[in-house]
Order: sequence, then C-alpha cells, then structure tokens
Amino acid sequence: MSGNTFGTLFAVTNFGESHGPAIGCVIDGCPPGMALSEADIQPELDRRRPGTSKFVTQRNEADQVEILSGVYQGQTTGTPICLLIRNTDQRSKDYGDITQTFRPGHADYTYWRKFGVRDPRGGGRSSARLTAPTVAAGAVARKWLQERYGTTFRGCMTQVGELAIGFDGWEHVANNPFFAPVADVSAIEDYMNALRKAGDSCGARLRVTAQHVPVGLGEPIYDRLDADIAKAMMGLNAVKGVEIGDGFASVAHKGSMHGDAILPGGQFASNHDGGVLGGISSGQDLEVAVAIKPTSSILVPRPSINTAGEPVEVITKGRHDPCVGIRATPILEALLALVVMDHALRHRAQCGDVAHPV
Amino acid sequence: MSGNTFGTLFAVTNFGESHGPAIGCVIDGCPPGMALSEADIQPELDRRRPGTSKFVTQRNEADQVEILSGVYQGQTTGTPICLLIRNTDQRSKDYGDITQTFRPGHADYTYWRKFGVRDPRGGGRSSARLTAPTVAAGAVARKWLQERYGTTFRGCMTQVGELAIGFDGWEHVANNPFFAPVADVSAIEDYMNALRKAGDSCGARLRVTAQHVPVGLGEPIYDRLDADIAKAMMGLNAVKGVEIGDGFASVAHKGSMHGDAILPGGQFASNHDGGVLGGISSGQDLEVAVAIKPTSSILVPRPSINTAGEPVEVITKGRHDPCVGIRATPILEALLALVVMDHALRHRAQCGDVAHPV
Amino acid sequence: MSGNTFGTLFAVTNFGESHGPAIGCVIDGCPPGMALSEADIQPELDRRRPGTSKFVTQRNEADQVEILSGVYQGQTTGTPICLLIRNTDQRSKDYGDITQTFRPGHADYTYWRKFGVRDPRGGGRSSARLTAPTVAAGAVARKWLQERYGTTFRGCMTQVGELAIGFDGWEHVANNPFFAPVADVSAIEDYMNALRKAGDSCGARLRVTAQHVPVGLGEPIYDRLDADIAKAMMGLNAVKGVEIGDGFASVAHKGSMHGDAILPGGQFASNHDGGVLGGISSGQDLEVAVAIKPTSSILVPRPSINTAGEPVEVITKGRHDPCVGIRATPILEALLALVVMDHALRHRAQCGDVAHPV
Amino acid sequence: MSGNTFGTLFAVTNFGESHGPAIGCVIDGCPPGMALSEADIQPELDRRRPGTSKFVTQRNEADQVEILSGVYQGQTTGTPICLLIRNTDQRSKDYGDITQTFRPGHADYTYWRKFGVRDPRGGGRSSARLTAPTVAAGAVARKWLQERYGTTFRGCMTQVGELAIGFDGWEHVANNPFFAPVADVSAIEDYMNALRKAGDSCGARLRVTAQHVPVGLGEPIYDRLDADIAKAMMGLNAVKGVEIGDGFASVAHKGSMHGDAILPGGQFASNHDGGVLGGISSGQDLEVAVAIKPTSSILVPRPSINTAGEPVEVITKGRHDPCVGIRATPILEALLALVVMDHALRHRAQCGDVAHPV
Repeated sequence: MSGNTFGTLFAVTNFGESHGPAIGCVIDGCPPGMALSEADIQPELDRRRPGTSKFVTQRNEADQVEILSGVYQGQTTGTPICLLIRNTDQRSKDYGDITQTFRPGHADYTYWRKFGVRDPRGGGRSSARLTAPTVAAGAVARKWLQERYGTTFRGCMTQVGELAIGFDGWEHVANNPFFAPVADVSAIEDYMNALRKAGDSCGARLRVTAQHVPVGLGEPIYDRLDADIAKAMMGLNAVKGVEIGDGFASVAHKGSMHGDAILPGGQFASNHDGGVLGGISSGQDLEVAVAIKPTSSILVPRPSINTAGEPVEVITKGRHDPCVGIRATPILEALLALVVMDHALRHRAQCGDVAHPV
Repeated sequence: MSGNTFGTLFAVTNFGESHGPAIGCVIDGCPPGMALSEADIQPELDRRRPGTSKFVTQRNEADQVEILSGVYQGQTTGTPICLLIRNTDQRSKDYGDITQTFRPGHADYTYWRKFGVRDPRGGGRSSARLTAPTVAAGAVARKWLQERYGTTFRGCMTQVGELAIGFDGWEHVANNPFFAPVADVSAIEDYMNALRKAGDSCGARLRVTAQHVPVGLGEPIYDRLDADIAKAMMGLNAVKGVEIGDGFASVAHKGSMHGDAILPGGQFASNHDGGVLGGISSGQDLEVAVAIKPTSSILVPRPSINTAGEPVEVITKGRHDPCVGIRATPILEALLALVVMDHALRHRAQCGDVAHPV
Repeated sequence: MSGNTFGTLFAVTNFGESHGPAIGCVIDGCPPGMALSEADIQPELDRRRPGTSKFVTQRNEADQVEILSGVYQGQTTGTPICLLIRNTDQRSKDYGDITQTFRPGHADYTYWRKFGVRDPRGGGRSSARLTAPTVAAGAVARKWLQERYGTTFRGCMTQVGELAIGFDGWEHVANNPFFAPVADVSAIEDYMNALRKAGDSCGARLRVTAQHVPVGLGEPIYDRLDADIAKAMMGLNAVKGVEIGDGFASVAHKGSMHGDAILPGGQFASNHDGGVLGGISSGQDLEVAVAIKPTSSILVPRPSINTAGEPVEVITKGRHDPCVGIRATPILEALLALVVMDHALRHRAQCGDVAHPV
Repeated sequence: MSGNTFGTLFAVTNFGESHGPAIGCVIDGCPPGMALSEADIQPELDRRRPGTSKFVTQRNEADQVEILSGVYQGQTTGTPICLLIRNTDQRSKDYGDITQTFRPGHADYTYWRKFGVRDPRGGGRSSARLTAPTVAAGAVARKWLQERYGTTFRGCMTQVGELAIGFDGWEHVANNPFFAPVADVSAIEDYMNALRKAGDSCGARLRVTAQHVPVGLGEPIYDRLDADIAKAMMGLNAVKGVEIGDGFASVAHKGSMHGDAILPGGQFASNHDGGVLGGISSGQDLEVAVAIKPTSSILVPRPSINTAGEPVEVITKGRHDPCVGIRATPILEALLALVVMDHALRHRAQCGDVAHPV
C-alpha cells in the first residue's frame, strides 16, 4: 500500500521523479465554486524554487504549474484538480557516478532494499524536488481556508547549524534568502559561506504557525490534529524532530505553570499547548517547530558500499543545498495548511460547519 | 470522519469512555494462524494498569481483557479480533464538580466546542484510560512481529521534570514503578514525593526503541515510517514533542559527522538517523524520544471558564497521575509496534515478504 | 487488508462469529447530539431475528443489543458507538459433522483456502448471523436520516422460487413472515411447505427503496451512489444480482422512452433510472432489486470433498432457512440506509449541507 | 470525500474532463520490477477508442498514452505511475446549446445540483471518455496478473436492444466492431442502422469473465470479491444491473441443483456461483453480466428544464454512440482486472502470497 496520498478528504496524490519528464499531484475533494488559476499557485512555488540565491542548489527549474483538470471558467468544479510541473533542467550526468553506490544518510540504500530497483537520477522519488507538488496543493488549501475562515500560515528559520537566529519581526522573512525573521542576515551569510568552503552541510530549526484556526478541528483519539501535524512535518525530507507548543521544554514544566488558563470568550492567558488540546484545535495559534538534519550530499568523502555490497568511498558532487532547511519554510507552511484543510472537511462531515459557540 | 482507527492494514478501531460500561478495540487484518489467547495480552495491560504504586492514580482497575472474536481453538482465524475490557471502578462522583467547567490544559473545552456535548466522567473519551485497548492491540502485533522477524520493542523514562535519569541498563526498567533504567530510583521517589506534597505535576521524557526491524518498511513519500511513528507518538495524550535518531540535536550537526557510514553487510558505523533513511527502515534499531507535558489535573487552583462562559477557578480533585509519563512506557512500545506491524503488512502487499538482499 | 468495515465517514466495523461469545459492530463517525438508546435499534433486530415462524431457522436468539459506548445521557457524543449482541443459543453439535467437509455452495471451502484455518461452528464468520450488527448500525443511520431529511426505507419480497408475488400494498409487508406486500400469503405458505417436505431450498427476489433522499448524494466517478448500493447489496450473503431502476429491462429499451423527462421543480415524469443519474441521487425514490440464490444448506445429499481432498457426500442437518430471502428485507433496508448515510456525510464534507437549489 | 480513486492497494486516481486539456490517472501501489512501457497499454486504449466504425461516435481521438512517472529503464519502480492522455479533438461548439439545459437521463442535472457548477463541454467529468484512464490502468493490472498467475480477462456483447446475440466462439469478438462472439454480424448492423435512422438509441447486455483467478481472493464480510465486482460494474456509465454466476436466474433455482458440487483437486462440477463463494474466489472462472441502458443523447426531442427551472425541449446533436454498450467490453475487462488486482494485493498483505493448498 504505497503511501503517496496526503490527507483523507482533501486528498493529494503526488507523482513524479526528480529527473523524469514531470512531477505533479491530483487533489481530490476540493470544494466546488472557488476561484482558482495558476496565478494563485505559482507564487508559492516561486518561494521554494531552487536557484534563487548562491546559498541553495543552482539547478534551474522554472517550476511552472499547469492546471490540467478540475477548474472550469476559473472556478473549481469539485472534480479532481491535476497540477502538472514539467522538469526542464535534468543534468543526469551529475548523478551518473552514484548509480551503483549508496550515499550515506540518503534514501539510496533503503529504496533499493525495499523495491529492488531505483531511479538514481537526482534521488529519483526521494528527491526534495517532490515537495513542489505539495507546495502547489498547499496553495489551493490556503486559499480556501483564507477565504472561508481567514486562516493564515507563516513560518521562519530560527536556527541554522550552531547559529541561533533572533526574531526582529515577520516582515523580514520575505527580505532574505533564509526566511530569517531578522533585519541583518550577514551572520547567516558568513556561516553559510564558511560551510560551503568546507564542502560540508548543516542542519536547521524552523518554526511554522497558523492564525485564525477554527476551533474544534481534530479527530481523536488517533487522528488528532497534533498527530497529523507531526506526521506531516516528520514526513518532510530530512526532518528528525517535531514540537507542538512548548514541545520538549514541557518536560521540565510544572502543571501549575504549563496549563493554559482559559479566559471568558474562549481566550487563553498563554499558549504552552500550541493551539491544540486533546488533539483538537482550541482556536489559539498553532505553534510548531521542526528539526532538520544536515544535507547528506556533501563533498567530504564518506565510507559506504555499492550494490555489490563492496566498500566504497562516496563524494557527492552535483548541485545541492548546503542546508536543506533554507528552502523548507514554504513547504512547512503548505504541509500545515494541508493538515488544517483536511481536518476542516473532516469536521464538517461529522459535526457540520460551525463549531459549538462558547 | 472520526479518527478512531489506528493503521491501515493492521487496523485497530478503538471504542469506549473512561466511565462507560466498557472499553476495547477491534483489530481487523491480523494474519491467520497465529496462536493467541488472553494470556498473550494481559501482561502488557498489567504493565500500564493504574494502582500499582503510590506514584500513580489509585483507581483500581483489573483491566482484564476478553477476546470476543477472531480466535478459534487458540489460533487467529484472520477475522476481526474484538478485545473487550470492562470498566469496574467508576467513581463518577469524583468528577461531578467539573461537569460544567473546563479544566485548563484538558480536552474538556475542545471536545465541548467540537461536539457540543461531552461525557465529563473521568474525561470520557479523552481519558488516558483509552490507551489500554491500544496496548492490548500492540501485544498482538508484538507477538506476530517477534515470531516472524524477531522484532522486539522496549522503552524507558529518561527524564522526569527537571530530573535527568541516567542509564545503568535495560534490566532495571522492570524493577521500579518509573520504568527507569537505573538501579537506584530514590532520587526519583524524592522528586515525586515533593511534587505530590505541592499538589503539582511534572512532565517527562521517554525513549522507545525497536530491534531487529526488517529493512524496507515505510511508504514514502507521505506514509513514511518515521512520519507514522511521529503521528503515533504525538497522538498519545500529553505528548508535545517527538524525535527520531538525533532529533533536535541534528540541527547543530555537520553533514560530515551526521550521515551514518554504511559498512559491508548492511551494517552502519553509527545511528544518527535512528533506523530510518528516506522514510524507510534501514535495519538499524528504531530510536524514538518523546516529550510529555505535566498532568493538567492538579490541586493548585487555576483560572478557567464554565459552559456558560463565566470565569471560574478550577481545582481538580480525584485520582490522577502526578506525572502521566510514569505509565507511558508500555504505551509507547505498543504504539511503535503497531506502526511497524502496519508497515510490515503494507510492504508485503506491494513488494512481497522479503526485502531485496544486499 | 481485511474488509470488515462498511462505509468511509459513517464507518461500521463488524466483528464476531456465529457461535462465538458475541457479535457486534463499532460505528465511527456518527454525528453528535442525536437521541439514541437500545430502544431505537432493537425493533429492527427483532424484524430479522430467527425463530419467528416455522419458515425460518428455529435457532432461538434474543438478539438483545447493548450500547457499550458513544452515548451519554441518551445522546450520541460523536465518539465510537459499540453495539454488542451476545450469542446465547449455540448448539455447535449441529455442526460437528461438517468441520472436516466443505458444503457445496458455502464459504467453507474458500475460507479454508484463503486463511488456512476456519471456525466451522455455524459457518463461523460467513454466517448470515453477522448481518445482525449491520441491521443494528442501519437503525442508527435510519434515525439520523429520518430526523434530518425525512428519508425513509422500505422493502419487500417480490418473488420466491418460481412463485411471483404481486403487490397489494406496503401495509401488508409487516403482517406476514415473508415480508410479502400481499393480503393473502397462503400460496407462499404452500410453496414453502412443499419445499421443506422435499428437504430442498429456493431463491428469492426482493425490492428495496428509499424515499425523500436528498439530491446530490454520490461521488463519481468511482464512488457513485449506485456503485456503492450495488456493492452493499451484492455483499450480502447469497445475493447474485443487483438492479437499479429498470435494471436488466433497460437492455431492450430505446433512449426515446427510457430517459426520465425532467419537469419544473425538479420533478420527473418517470423513474426508469431508479433515482440515480450519473452516480448521483436525483431526489427521486431509490429503486433497487436483488436476486438471492437458494440456501446451500439442504437435506438433499450433495457430492463434495473434505479437508484431505477426498470425495465425500454432504447432507446439511441442523437449523437452516429454506429460503434466506425471507429474512433479507430488513437487512437490505439497513444496507441501503448505510450507503445513503455515508454519502450524506461525504457530500457534506465537500459541498456543505444543502444541495444547490433548482 | 470525492470518490475518484479506484481500489485500495492498487489505487487508481482518475482526473480530467472530456474537453479539458488532458485526462489521465495515477496508479499508486503497483509492484516494482515489472517491465512496462506505453506499448503495453496502448493496445487496450485502441480497443475502446472512438471513431473506429460508423456505429460509434465519430469524435477523433488518438488516445495516445504517456507514462510520466513510476517507470525507470522500462521497469516499474514501485512509485506512482502517472498516465497522461491529451485531449485533441475538442469541438465544444457541439455542446454549446446544452450549457443551460439538462439532458434527460444525463448527469447534467445531478452534477449541477451537487456542485452548483459544472463543466458542460461534452458532459465534462461525467463523460464516458473518462473510462480511458481506467482502461489504461487496467492494462497495467492485466500484465501483472498475467505474468504472475496467468490470469486472463475477456468479454463480449450478448444482446443489443431487443436483439439477442448468439455465441459462436471468443475468436470472433475481435473481428467486428460490436465485440460480438458471432461470425455473422449483419443482423446487428441492420439493427443499428435502423436505430440511427430513427435518431434513437438502445441498451445492451454484456458478459465479462476471468480465467485462472487465484483461489482465496476477497475480503468478507463487506469487501467481498463479488461486492467489489458489482461496485466496479455498476460504477460504469449507463450500467443499471449486475449479475454474478447465474444472477437473477438463481431466484427460481432449487438448492439441490444450484450448489456447485466440489470435486477432488478443487475442481467443480458446475459454476452457478460464477467463481465466488462467500465473497472469496473459488478458483473457477469469474462470470459477470451487466445491463447497459440506452444512450441518453438522442435526436428525438425530450421535455426537460433549464438552470432557471423553466421547461425546455432538448435535442442532443453532436457526436454520440447510439449504443454505449458497443465500446464497453474493454472497459468491463479492465474494471474486472482492477478488482482482481486490488484483491490479489490485499490477500498478500494479510495471508501472504500462496493460498492454502487443497
């Protein structure tokens, strides 16, 4: 049972390989009657596309999205929306040297063990390039949630390698290639330059949030909103940790300080729980943090084996992000939007549109 | 779309409320021909049951499991296995005072907002008591995985509140009420006693692992093994964070040290990735850590509101765990087993039984 | 992937064996806030229960349903509803002689080939007794649909063996053991008596309909309303054919007479299509017909084999319905209700509550 | 929850509209390591494509399929297979006159009532053109089943309108445009010519079978093999009835003649049950019959209403099949193959590859 569909009622089925003819997805379950065109989706794809700065892979992909179905006269019809993105810059020769070897930290080894066959060109199916259709689908979800509930999503990088990043304000995120919420990113640039000089890579910590989330979303006891958020985040390439609200800091907390006091009108005095109580949205902002491991594709030689099981030394040339976290912000926002969208439809199915009033 | 089923091919549907007549689950998809009786399940339920020490709730539940279907002459038949646990000690009066108020940090408020109605007796559906059927189903999965692949699961508490717990060895876990891997738990006892005296609660950090996991389990790009592990863990009551492998420590890592070198024979020189590469099991031990927030039911008065929206002060009397993390270890083991079991069947469906040899 | 769950959003998971301790189901996804008690369910179970006339099996089962969860103070809470029915009259000795042989026309052979193990007591899992939980779940769906949309369901037997049954009116259905819509059932009684004397069995044709079905239910292109109706009906034990609207008579029709003319106000001049157009409900009555094969359990000796593959002669003693169609009417009504209920929630998820007005 | 995915483990997600830029599907769950190219799929598409005789629509579509993903170096990789078919001949003007009216017997009315918006060009999503991706996916399933189990599928037309068609042999089916198993089709040609002269349409009856089906496929009690076959068949445009084995003829049968005697070696003396017992394949040929209603698009004027609810008279010009049954045979074969394929993987997940030997 191959797991390439995200969501249950707003179901996004992803297809394609990094160096195949095209990548894309089919969205099944989008409500009818919403205005939609490529112009609503392209900006989000542009935020994550490669080649936008010297700090990310130089692969040059326009990532132009084409709507193949599900929209008539600029309006969603309720039928499946197929979003297609043609691959244009496929320099497979970059990857020729790794077709018979397994790159440490990569999915090469496990894909081969699982399927007995793999497409090694650019990581094939395991490439982070496959997050583009996720971002495209997320843009559709974001539009519907924004129009219906005013729900919005935003994220930023809060740490890169050993370098903690402060918070000057959300307005700065769009003004630098790191999605950093700070006015001055020179320290980050210096850090990244040193890293590139060393042919090495580093990890990152990111934050993603949602505002104006309807109260009552989440399907305990198993399909809780926080559980599905954790799945979505941990499912992103290179993510090794997920926190909601205070996350691991909660371990050292006392109940007397952690529990968010409830105020009249359904307000809260704090948000230690990150907007989720018992797996259901409380109406507070969703607060999520993720840990991203360092890119496995580096110039530093690493011991590994080949498909014959013989020891080899691997150096990964080609075009890679020294820190995959740099381009992860729009992807995390899209994933959070897809989770909220799916749960909004699930809530509507069982309980109807409006949450029970305070 | 109510989310009370865990898993896709080994599907566990959970039912019941804390103070209703019974709780239980139906397992659909268990392979036929496995020897199974209540004796295979009861020991796991006994590990998590309340009333076993002065450091956990004194509610007295035998948690006796009854197999209602799916087993004939001591063997699974491949038909649904219904596991029933009758509730016996239902002292609802303990909870009478909170039927009209919302306990901060609890699901009271969100259940009421979502459904417009809730069973307040002992938290109703949101009670941690509903983890018992999960543990029972996990015992069935553990037996099949152990017999077929030799896969085993174990866990322990690694921190309680501010108190870090060392590691003397797995053999100590069964010898103390905290599932702590240390010979001397007096420090933990002192910490818990002080906490109880203050009428307060604390969080905890736990570790859960799996050994002898088949290579090739996981369904990228969305239903990755690590993604489903994160969902299972974050879906447990009070969990606020999940890590796989080095987790958040990976943020400060360099690629040159993080990527696990692959050795001939499919061995690895390290396990920074916690047994998962590209969302697929590598054959290394699965290494998972979770953060559990402090119990929300405390004697310290907290501001909140009632169902009329009026401000009230809440003190939670009754029988509660001062640290829900204390009894969480067997639950986390069961959840990890259910994820591995489901993915073992999913792998078998598409790729057949055996992973591609090295 | 064991298929014991009916429906997607109103999901009914069935468990139990004919001669195990109990049978039942878990309903996940029932909307909250509906008044519900055993008294709403028991009447439907009583309509299908055995031992009610000399023309059906004399097995004596009270089929008393117990609600184990999902209802608090007489109201559904939106959490899983577990319905339990204890088996009381388990005369397994009746079946001892067939544990090693396969009854022609029965599932004995295929269950054994599929699972390698089977519970032979009364057919185990393949017994028509397992339709009881389906009927119980159907009663819950019927109540919600009736209260919300005024949707009602009814059915009758239209042919038994070679004997066609006329139609005097729906009011007669409840007044005879055959669910026949005729005032005088003496011909049916004579036919059945002769059949019993011969130790033989016969088939039956039944009709089931729904009135006041909301317009717009059905999820083309695959999960069409008519497709799911066909699955539900063909999934009932012994059913070999399903028709919607004019069914097989449509083959000889001309388009000029078959297509139902649409009248102002969303009325139709005829109902050749049986209430479904393009897989979506039109608002007309749903009209379904099913063919049920003769009971395979007969006294007439039949050639077969045993588990050793040796030829044997099988005579099925014990308590059996000479025509399983006699008790099928309430089951077909329940199945149709479950399909409509599931699609009502599915429609609500994507399109909201109200169909687009004419 | 939009129902555009067929199957659970071999999951085919269909997208596109009759006159949009393209139609296609994504197959998720195809086993890896199977040789696959467009040449394996195109022949099946050619069998159903329009414009092949004067008795079907003259729309000229090459229906050229393109594999966009999931295949590397001519081999399936286990990742999603996207199959794309560009629409080329889109003469929308043919349909301009029906954008504001509802054609009797068509899905126009119900799509509009359900979604509040519809793509009227050629029926949009409800067009039989959307069966092309189903046929393409079916070709992939057929190849895998043929290679692994030797399973084959074939079908034919057995009645057109009032005209019953005999059976001279399967070899004739490919030699006439009607998929009729007879040497001389002049009677059919005369019947169709008269029908076209009258501007009318007619229904048809078809038969579809499978040979060498593995024993043990089917997931009772709800996802029975026969139930899923019925859903697949009834889900095809214009189908109003489905029979398995003797179907409606079983009503008048006696148990003493109907039950198929079992012979040593797992053979059967007859096949009244059409290859399914208790919802599980018996190893006999699957025997299915379907009833198809007359095309609703005819030149004979019919009363209807428009989107304003006003009475109108509808004449459907444009290019239509006078009998949609004529091109249905390859579609029914594909649907049966998809059902068997899905159940083969489902069986493997729970029970492993091989059925229990006799």
